[in-house]
Amino acid sequence: MIKNVAITGGTHGNELTGVYLVKKWQKNPKLIKRNSFKTITKLMNIQAIKEIRRYIDQDLNRSFSLNDLSNDKLDTYEAKLAKEINILLGKKGTPNPNMDFIVDLHTTTANMGLSIVVSNENPTTWRAIAYLCKMEPKLKVYRWRGDIEKTFVDSIAPNGFAIEVGAIPQGVLRADLFLQTEMLVYHLLDFIEKENKKEDIDLPNEIEIYDHEKLVDYPRDRSGDIVAMVHQDRQDKDYTLIKENDPLFLSLDGETIGYSGEHLYTLFVNESAYYEKGFAMTLARKRRVSLVK
Amino acid sequence: MIKNVAITGGTHGNELTGVYLVKKWQKNPKLIKRNSFKTITKLMNIQAIKEIRRYIDQDLNRSFSLNDLSNDKLDTYEAKLAKEINILLGKKGTPNPNMDFIVDLHTTTANMGLSIVVSNENPTTWRAIAYLCKMEPKLKVYRWRGDIEKTFVDSIAPNGFAIEVGAIPQGVLRADLFLQTEMLVYHLLDFIEKENKKEDIDLPNEIEIYDHEKLVDYPRDRSGDIVAMVHQDRQDKDYTLIKENDPLFLSLDGETIGYSGEHLYTLFVNESAYYEKGFAMTLARKRRVSLVK
Repeated sequence: MIKNVAITGGTHGNELTGVYLVKKWQKNPKLIKRNSFKTITKLMNIQAIKEIRRYIDQDLNRSFSLNDLSNDKLDTYEAKLAKEINILLGKKGTPNPNMDFIVDLHTTTANMGLSIVVSNENPTTWRAIAYLCKMEPKLKVYRWRGDIEKTFVDSIAPNGFAIEVGAIPQGVLRADLFLQTEMLVYHLLDFIEKENKKEDIDLPNEIEIYDHEKLVDYPRDRSGDIVAMVHQDRQDKDYTLIKENDPLFLSLDGETIGYSGEHLYTLFVNESAYYEKGFAMTLARKRRVSLVK
Repeated sequence: MIKNVAITGGTHGNELTGVYLVKKWQKNPKLIKRNSFKTITKLMNIQAIKEIRRYIDQDLNRSFSLNDLSNDKLDTYEAKLAKEINILLGKKGTPNPNMDFIVDLHTTTANMGLSIVVSNENPTTWRAIAYLCKMEPKLKVYRWRGDIEKTFVDSIAPNGFAIEVGAIPQGVLRADLFLQTEMLVYHLLDFIEKENKKEDIDLPNEIEIYDHEKLVDYPRDRSGDIVAMVHQDRQDKDYTLIKENDPLFLSLDGETIGYSGEHLYTLFVNESAYYEKGFAMTLARKRRVSLVK
């Protein structure tokens, strides 16, 4: 039984869709009210939202490891904020969490369309995802396995995922994608309502996902500065197969650098925030995963 | 005779095309070498480039009014930087300027394609623009007249303009638009070379421009926060006519707000950096201007 749901926006202060959806729902809580559970909304990184920056000191959405949450010496703005959020919406790993489900709203400058980023293995989370995919056939699912420990906001609750929508520049609201993100959240709340009421939900036995394989960094010079861009033929090609020798980067000098490796799918191609994290795109394998009923 | 040209990039630290074009040319100065004049390149807002932000304290590209340049009391990071730049590339208004032509490289999150933003009335500047339009028929020209005094970087030299290219998210290099911006600069240098050598350049008698009329702000609440987005039917519609009752904004509550006013063209639609400046788009009138030969 899901009793408490949190919708979080502005975990990254320059991703406005979540910020303004939360503001909308805080004005009109009826829109997210369902009978069988309670839903709260939260604007997350208040200072970063004010400054329209991703973060102040460190990425809030990488600040929720158990180690960091219990380390009193970490005192950056986001390290302290993560601890407060964990008390409010967690606590991570506890058998009696304040929230049963967290959906964290993000945007990306990459052409990711409507995406779910999931690193949760809980069957309820996966049934929710299957329901959303059924209601919104354009939705794609990316299983993130790039970290040993889960450090995302949604990792502090037993169930949850991030909704990632793009292409949206930082600091911009796009009405079309705002409406589509909003609709995904309503589908999620509807699913939880049906699940709680033990309604018979017709779900497939398995769903198609993109499973994280690895990161691809930009070519860089000795000082760490990039010396090539995502090639124009790869730009905007999220969820698209890349094969041996396909153009991958274009050096600043105009030379094409080809891809070498297994045939995989490129995701998060040329996401602005990942230049500093050291990757130009991620590679994923398409596979089908079974749902536990 | 044009003797000294400056190509400036990173006036806004999160507009990477200019930053990396300047880095490219600083490594390979031959690419911008022409016989009849000297070209220098300059990375402008070093600290903002480092932090991948538009600016630190204030918009550098609004910091070049004569008043501000001569006001010793202004001591923000950009106010001081503007004075240094004015000594290096100006001085503004002097009869013996260090630079005869400044081209300042920008990007925009709006779907502006290849654009020139000009607020200079010097005939040589306009002949350069006409040449670029001839060499690149996709290029569009926006004459900015929104300020009483010119405060842009290029205003400190007798000739110049900004190149604005989009849609590009902040903090992102797009290879396709990088190459097109680069090509525009080469055309400009070629024009100056021909002009200096008094070659006969076949230019039209007049060119089509978009002449600034006014700014349109977002609907806002009493605290100044936006309560509507650019309507999905207007999104990406730069250089596109808007007519009475055309959808203009979509309120967060889902209501369409129509346009009311003269039929004009919308530009800089939903540019990220202009949320704080108080406009959602600019309106311009299409007209033809004659060239002085």
